[in-house]
Amino acid sequence: MGKTVIDVNNNIPFNNNVDYCVGTGRLGLALTAEYLEQLKLVQKEIGFKNIRGHGLFCDDVAIYQEYEEDGITKVEYNYTYIDRIFDSYLELGIRPFLELGFMPEKMASGTQTIFYWKGNTTPPKDYKLWTDMVIALLKHLRSRYGEEVLDWNIEVWNEPNLPGFWYKADMEEYFRLFKETFTAIKAYDERFQVGGPAICGVNDEEWIQKFLEFCKAEGIKPDSVTRHHYTVEFPERIGHYDYSKLEEPVARLANLQSTRDIVESFDEFKGLPIHITEFSTSYTPKGVIHDTNLNAAYLAGQLSHLGDMNTSYSYWTFGDVFEEQGVPFTPFHGGFGMVANGCIPKPTFYTFAFFKQLKEFGTDCIFRDDTAVIVKSDKGFAGILWNIDTDDFTRTFTFPVSGEYTLITKTVDEDTCNPLKIWHDMGEPPYLTKAQTELLRDCAKPLFGSDVISAENGKADISLTAKRNGVVYFELTPRTFTPDRGYDYDKVLSFH
Amino acid sequence: MGKTVIDVNNNIPFNNNVDYCVGTGRLGLALTAEYLEQLKLVQKEIGFKNIRGHGLFCDDVAIYQEYEEDGITKVEYNYTYIDRIFDSYLELGIRPFLELGFMPEKMASGTQTIFYWKGNTTPPKDYKLWTDMVIALLKHLRSRYGEEVLDWNIEVWNEPNLPGFWYKADMEEYFRLFKETFTAIKAYDERFQVGGPAICGVNDEEWIQKFLEFCKAEGIKPDSVTRHHYTVEFPERIGHYDYSKLEEPVARLANLQSTRDIVESFDEFKGLPIHITEFSTSYTPKGVIHDTNLNAAYLAGQLSHLGDMNTSYSYWTFGDVFEEQGVPFTPFHGGFGMVANGCIPKPTFYTFAFFKQLKEFGTDCIFRDDTAVIVKSDKGFAGILWNIDTDDFTRTFTFPVSGEYTLITKTVDEDTCNPLKIWHDMGEPPYLTKAQTELLRDCAKPLFGSDVISAENGKADISLTAKRNGVVYFELTPRTFTPDRGYDYDKVLSFH
Amino acid sequence: MGKTVIDVNNNIPFNNNVDYCVGTGRLGLALTAEYLEQLKLVQKEIGFKNIRGHGLFCDDVAIYQEYEEDGITKVEYNYTYIDRIFDSYLELGIRPFLELGFMPEKMASGTQTIFYWKGNTTPPKDYKLWTDMVIALLKHLRSRYGEEVLDWNIEVWNEPNLPGFWYKADMEEYFRLFKETFTAIKAYDERFQVGGPAICGVNDEEWIQKFLEFCKAEGIKPDSVTRHHYTVEFPERIGHYDYSKLEEPVARLANLQSTRDIVESFDEFKGLPIHITEFSTSYTPKGVIHDTNLNAAYLAGQLSHLGDMNTSYSYWTFGDVFEEQGVPFTPFHGGFGMVANGCIPKPTFYTFAFFKQLKEFGTDCIFRDDTAVIVKSDKGFAGILWNIDTDDFTRTFTFPVSGEYTLITKTVDEDTCNPLKIWHDMGEPPYLTKAQTELLRDCAKPLFGSDVISAENGKADISLTAKRNGVVYFELTPRTFTPDRGYDYDKVLSFH
Amino acid sequence: MGKTVIDVNNNIPFNNNVDYCVGTGRLGLALTAEYLEQLKLVQKEIGFKNIRGHGLFCDDVAIYQEYEEDGITKVEYNYTYIDRIFDSYLELGIRPFLELGFMPEKMASGTQTIFYWKGNTTPPKDYKLWTDMVIALLKHLRSRYGEEVLDWNIEVWNEPNLPGFWYKADMEEYFRLFKETFTAIKAYDERFQVGGPAICGVNDEEWIQKFLEFCKAEGIKPDSVTRHHYTVEFPERIGHYDYSKLEEPVARLANLQSTRDIVESFDEFKGLPIHITEFSTSYTPKGVIHDTNLNAAYLAGQLSHLGDMNTSYSYWTFGDVFEEQGVPFTPFHGGFGMVANGCIPKPTFYTFAFFKQLKEFGTDCIFRDDTAVIVKSDKGFAGILWNIDTDDFTRTFTFPVSGEYTLITKTVDEDTCNPLKIWHDMGEPPYLTKAQTELLRDCAKPLFGSDVISAENGKADISLTAKRNGVVYFELTPRTFTPDRGYDYDKVLSFH
Repeated sequence: MGKTVIDVNNNIPFNNNVDYCVGTGRLGLALTAEYLEQLKLVQKEIGFKNIRGHGLFCDDVAIYQEYEEDGITKVEYNYTYIDRIFDSYLELGIRPFLELGFMPEKMASGTQTIFYWKGNTTPPKDYKLWTDMVIALLKHLRSRYGEEVLDWNIEVWNEPNLPGFWYKADMEEYFRLFKETFTAIKAYDERFQVGGPAICGVNDEEWIQKFLEFCKAEGIKPDSVTRHHYTVEFPERIGHYDYSKLEEPVARLANLQSTRDIVESFDEFKGLPIHITEFSTSYTPKGVIHDTNLNAAYLAGQLSHLGDMNTSYSYWTFGDVFEEQGVPFTPFHGGFGMVANGCIPKPTFYTFAFFKQLKEFGTDCIFRDDTAVIVKSDKGFAGILWNIDTDDFTRTFTFPVSGEYTLITKTVDEDTCNPLKIWHDMGEPPYLTKAQTELLRDCAKPLFGSDVISAENGKADISLTAKRNGVVYFELTPRTFTPDRGYDYDKVLSFH
Repeated sequence: MGKTVIDVNNNIPFNNNVDYCVGTGRLGLALTAEYLEQLKLVQKEIGFKNIRGHGLFCDDVAIYQEYEEDGITKVEYNYTYIDRIFDSYLELGIRPFLELGFMPEKMASGTQTIFYWKGNTTPPKDYKLWTDMVIALLKHLRSRYGEEVLDWNIEVWNEPNLPGFWYKADMEEYFRLFKETFTAIKAYDERFQVGGPAICGVNDEEWIQKFLEFCKAEGIKPDSVTRHHYTVEFPERIGHYDYSKLEEPVARLANLQSTRDIVESFDEFKGLPIHITEFSTSYTPKGVIHDTNLNAAYLAGQLSHLGDMNTSYSYWTFGDVFEEQGVPFTPFHGGFGMVANGCIPKPTFYTFAFFKQLKEFGTDCIFRDDTAVIVKSDKGFAGILWNIDTDDFTRTFTFPVSGEYTLITKTVDEDTCNPLKIWHDMGEPPYLTKAQTELLRDCAKPLFGSDVISAENGKADISLTAKRNGVVYFELTPRTFTPDRGYDYDKVLSFH
Repeated sequence: MGKTVIDVNNNIPFNNNVDYCVGTGRLGLALTAEYLEQLKLVQKEIGFKNIRGHGLFCDDVAIYQEYEEDGITKVEYNYTYIDRIFDSYLELGIRPFLELGFMPEKMASGTQTIFYWKGNTTPPKDYKLWTDMVIALLKHLRSRYGEEVLDWNIEVWNEPNLPGFWYKADMEEYFRLFKETFTAIKAYDERFQVGGPAICGVNDEEWIQKFLEFCKAEGIKPDSVTRHHYTVEFPERIGHYDYSKLEEPVARLANLQSTRDIVESFDEFKGLPIHITEFSTSYTPKGVIHDTNLNAAYLAGQLSHLGDMNTSYSYWTFGDVFEEQGVPFTPFHGGFGMVANGCIPKPTFYTFAFFKQLKEFGTDCIFRDDTAVIVKSDKGFAGILWNIDTDDFTRTFTFPVSGEYTLITKTVDEDTCNPLKIWHDMGEPPYLTKAQTELLRDCAKPLFGSDVISAENGKADISLTAKRNGVVYFELTPRTFTPDRGYDYDKVLSFH
Repeated sequence: MGKTVIDVNNNIPFNNNVDYCVGTGRLGLALTAEYLEQLKLVQKEIGFKNIRGHGLFCDDVAIYQEYEEDGITKVEYNYTYIDRIFDSYLELGIRPFLELGFMPEKMASGTQTIFYWKGNTTPPKDYKLWTDMVIALLKHLRSRYGEEVLDWNIEVWNEPNLPGFWYKADMEEYFRLFKETFTAIKAYDERFQVGGPAICGVNDEEWIQKFLEFCKAEGIKPDSVTRHHYTVEFPERIGHYDYSKLEEPVARLANLQSTRDIVESFDEFKGLPIHITEFSTSYTPKGVIHDTNLNAAYLAGQLSHLGDMNTSYSYWTFGDVFEEQGVPFTPFHGGFGMVANGCIPKPTFYTFAFFKQLKEFGTDCIFRDDTAVIVKSDKGFAGILWNIDTDDFTRTFTFPVSGEYTLITKTVDEDTCNPLKIWHDMGEPPYLTKAQTELLRDCAKPLFGSDVISAENGKADISLTAKRNGVVYFELTPRTFTPDRGYDYDKVLSFH
């Protein structure tokens, strides 16, 4: 490729909200040690602000309880586990994004369940029981965690447009659930933030349109509109695994734009926040692509654009403690996580780490195209380069600067950070020994590089190589050279 | 290069005793947190059995105390600090190699001191005070640590053949010190292990010869002979730093052989253990070469041969907490350590880690030349390749095996693990921020690679590349392929 | 009370095997962080060798899996979770005591389940599926953990004499299960240790008798006989809680003796180890007595005798992560554990800690009655005093010794270590804040005391006070007085 | 004693600034692991904001360096160690209170030194060298730690009114040092906070008076006045130890008032902050009283009043890593610290912990006399009771409240928390084993108590007992009783 000249006066809209939220396996799993270790790693190296998952009201969390007394069925609530879970989150610096669901078995109107862990996905047998439980929980959370709870996002249910997640995908019934819930919460305290309809990509235009019409008709103003975003075709299932083709990245972004367009078409809802409360490539927890370097590169492309029409977007999920399709048989089983079981970062982990580092470096975007994004700040320049399944390439960027610069690069590609390959070459052991786990952790690191760049004639060129499925983060910062008395690096290298 | 065919029936003597002992800055520094963090890292990743340093009897450790009572000067001992130090060592799984020295100021016959920290290097004013102190210490150690103390190595003084370390380098006086000490200890318990004369490379042949003649004449049989081994020419000092040329590695090994030859020439001492109680390239703590990849590669060559004529050899030193020439001004100041201040591993750290991994893999050597060593065990094959300052090269080894093998490689070279260069490119900051320290730690890792090797016609070829100043560790082990039901790695990579 | 003169030549049989084994909530709970923290505390302060719990084959551990292929149902096993669980145990220095049960849902012949977590308690639909699963597991464990697995205890099922735990409490069917399992394991490797019948105290004499008759008739020699031991009357249930009266301690021991007598009545089985694989006071996880000081004192009495007729005895359970009756509503809910949720030690925790300290001090028992036990060793004397719900008392023991002794005492009673009371006085908060949890942890410590005991005329008296429901541990060891130069403790205290 | 009726409308001035600052052994010791562990404990349980110690410019910290170049002596600075030290402080949440001193050997005008560690206490040979060094340090600190450095307190030298600390205790010369330093710093940035004269109690009135006259005459307005405060008579030294009588506590406070009076007598300096930059009972690091419960009780009395006339007061010192009089021979050697070596809290540790807890509870003082202080807040009431060497006593306080209250008490006295006695009873072992250290740590805890207090007729009585040399902390807070369904504490205790 030729040189790309960077215009530092560009001001490209780039809502890099990579760290706003991340997805999780059902909340009950947050009691487990492996889950917490993975989340600790993710928070240490990336640091998300919010976390969203299913199962808040499922029976393993055990909030809703009934008992008989004097022949009457009475209700009591148990917050032992949800406190333990949310305490852990807050200790790790991450706040709950409350997805209200699914249905406690004893409150359910039917027996339909979803997943290996059998979340009941039917409406409540009595909406009063439901709203009482929701309000009681919010009161409890407020008494425990204080007024910050008012700022936590609340989302009503998950993917009601799929019959597995909501009995018959009954739109009317979902709108009722939304209205009852929304109204009860706002009656308790109107400052709570309540959104929906949390749909997946099926019939999304119709659902969003009707949802907003419903809200308008009912005089309801949700605090946000929520939906999901997955980017593969229907998978082929073989044995325990799902193989699926990636969709063309840009085409899928157009689908997201349509949601924004619908929202903007309502005067009442113009400018409402849209939260993509789940996104990934494959939508199954056996989607083999999740463990690959291709996934990492593809997501770099997504992360460079998801903020264009959305307030936030939450990767589904931070780790591989999951269980929707049962207990995995191997560490690399195509789980949704950025981190494989055994606390092994997958390449995608670094895509998120790099976009977070980019955000911390600066948010003034001065360059973006389909393989790179660059920002500036008073520290200098930083950027990310990616290669989605094309031949290796090298790009040269020309910065209009003078003086000496330090270039630091961090590279994740199939040669430098590829635990899946090493695991495969080891024979695909299903049950890792401690030594194998450590080896896989040790190999799952970026490769660091550095250079001194001297500008000439007011220009400095940096050349960066992105191998197939590689992601490269770089920082270019003015270099203050402060050699100690008598230290001469060139002499160090040559004198022997 | 052509292929190198490996004869697995070879049985090459290879005393890989890389983990026997490591050197340390003076013992008093073992009270500090930075020292202990570095040692913890070294013990976790390498794991040495013994540790040897100066300063056991120096005043900062405070063992020897005098006080006046009734007009008389009396002696008392204080073990508060030495207990704290040795407790730390034993908790980290490393045992003291006791170097007896230097002289407590109040016991000294003169005022000559050495180093920034002023170790007194004169004989005792009264040998009885000295031997009393030594025996009292051994008794105290035994009461605290039990009978294992009998197995700790004891060495009398350090480099008495240098006038800085021993007043006038007075050979007669050293022999007296040795005899008094040796005799007193053996009188206390003859099971203690006592050696000397701990000389550096100056006049070594003369000193070893005369030391053994003295022992023979006196009817003394030391438990070991000890000496040092450095491999650079006289340095050029510029500002705070020392630049020196490496000596030809093999020539220097011949000098070690001469010590072995002298020992063997005495019927009484034939086969005595020889401990190289210090070795490195440069012999100064400002020797800039220590921080380089060249140092790592050169030492690989040394480690492949040092066991040929010696029982053990102790790298000087594990870390950069040192102070002999004062407090360093920067993190990369040519300190002796494998680990730079800030707990940053230098390339040489991995040379030791790799030789330790090799030892744990197996000790049956089947190949060794000037750039490689290979062992076998029931687990398969492992080896190390190195490149001492030559052009990049690739070697192919042919193993007479059948079936499928997993090849794992770990590479440390100027491109993959070079914290010195990144620090230089950053501008050589003298006082690292936390972020800089973390970056330098993160970059100081080997690069991992893997491959599946299929033998054909009873032969398997592996090709390994050693770039200039690179060190490559590999393991070649039979691969048991256990893919899970439905998992197809090739399909994972191609299906998108 | 008068003085009790200790005869140091006594040799009282006292099989103090307090640390042999401890019980746990179902194995699946070992994946959780709270569970592991509690176990870590228990292992650090007490240190058990084995751990036994239900649920090895329950579906949350997910070992047994079926799938369809080509229209045929096939079996596969999943060891992901059990490896994680057992890895955690071994890291904490505790080994599994394998209780084989309950039935995977898909292998079950019926739908009967037990507990909140729905363990299926029916026989297998096909005994071949069962024994295949057992043998496959043992092979897997052996490949992962090595030959030590041969030493792990194996017990067939749990409490088959109760219809809730084994369909209809069908004795014939249990004997079949035992025989099929025993025979299959011994056919695989006869060195495995297999025992049963794991009964509770209902119809115990009949079951033990018939079990051994069955074994004799079938030519089977089990490696141990196992049963349980609880010591309360039938509880009164009020709301979430069970209140029950303690039985007279000695009477209950007689019941244990009857098991031993039956075993000894068979020539073939004389001397077989008897493992009490569960014991406690109350047999419900809502048994309010568990959290009291009375429980601690009562158990001291039990621990002083349980080894008389049994090889081992395993307290049910180490911690309060349990769930058999659902999720607890408060931290002090009468759970079985020595440790309450929030990692708060209950008084009973220290009864076990004290008996473990006693065991480590020595095993030569020289005194035992209904409120005290004393041992000697070359270190001196140690003992435990307890008071089961009587008025405060002080006992004086006279030791036939000379010289000076140090007496150290550790006291746990209602005044010194009573977290339940402090929690009650706080208002019985159901959901502890972090500060409340820390306060409760801090208060749950023994009170330490010390004294210098000077023998006179070859006798030394020590007086110890056990308040109601108190447990007191003491050590009496010869005192070597080594005051430093100028230090005078009496002067320190008086000089002001 | 009779009842003490508390008037909750009282508003008693009580400047409880217990956590403002704490003293430390010389800064160079902050490199050691034992020091940092002790400080970590202190910060976790108490939490001070600032830390002050000697030795900033002493040669072990190595800031000031000279070298020859081209025949000229040049100056360079080395911040390697001071950065490491201050990084540690800030990580532990404590900020440096910069005491400028003592003199680098090469900058000194004389050879007089103080202490085992030989701090040079002579004026600079050239004041320009001194102020250059000071300003260079402040610039360095600001570049590393940012603008918060402007808020760090700066104090010029230590105890210049003692000839050991300042050559000949030369007042004129000190005033020159102060002026040169003050002027240089303010010229650099006037926002820095600079105070003096840091005198001990000898000739304090004269020094403070003349210091302020000097400042006035020179037109200097220091940011604070600093002095020290010790409360024992001249000690008797026996062997390694110092025995001294305590002074009457109130008399000593009068001496502090005199400093305040002098300050207030200058219009220019009225209201200036006074920092007691050192206080304790004994002023020697061998002062045996430091380890006693008496010390803890006496200091409670001091802490209840030190804020009356002073802005802050800094206990000398947090821990026993010290070395001014050499290396201690035993763990309980009368060191200044709240924490003994081995990280064993002394009783005094809890006096500070209790006053910190009191401060966090509330600062509105409603009662104070010579054995107690009580505050109120919206949480309820909290207070501290102490007994300075009198017979045990019980006090009853009557609070004008209604409803039910929880009383929590924490007691430290000779029976409940007395590691010195247990160590003595053990025989005063000089070198603790790990087990002994753990025992001493475990015994050094407060005893917790609790009660439910029911007000009657608008009054609630609480009775607290302070044994001789005891310190008791209490909190009295409204009790919300929330028993779970079916839980009846009285029944729990009685039903067996």
